[in-house]
Amino acid sequence: MENIKIQKSFGKVIKKIRQEKGISQEYLAELVDLHRTYISDIERGGRNVSLVNIWRIAEGLEVSAFEIFKEMEKEFEGR
Amino acid sequence: MENIKIQKSFGKVIKKIRQEKGISQEYLAELVDLHRTYISDIERGGRNVSLVNIWRIAEGLEVSAFEIFKEMEKEFEGR
Repeated sequence: MENIKIQKSFGKVIKKIRQEKGISQEYLAELVDLHRTYISDIERGGRNVSLVNIWRIAEGLEVSAFEIFKEMEKEFEGR
Repeated sequence: MENIKIQKSFGKVIKKIRQEKGISQEYLAELVDLHRTYISDIERGGRNVSLVNIWRIAEGLEVSAFEIFKEMEKEFEGR
């Protein structure tokens, strides 16, 4: 799997979950103590996010980290 | 969740899966094109691994990344 595909898939899933929860990038950034532009970069697939930040973002979105990866799998499988 | 707890849990799960598969740190390192000491550091909880490396390690272990996070959840829930 190409690195950029992994990052883009991660970003797409984060954006999807965030929007489903009706949370703005600003509010998510505040919740997880990260900068709004960092959240924006992630959602565009421009960041190779670290384990700890993946976990914090999942907490901020009130989902389990495995749900994020489950969604990524679904996308790669074309479901 | 404290950062070190997240890293330690991740490392523990990677080590568990690797040992279940009967793969050495050296062999896993070779499979995923990372250094053996990096794998060793990860398993000790000393690394804040990036998304791309999480994905590569999961591929090397022939598991889905979400299975790693599912195992981490189980551990935190004390199951």
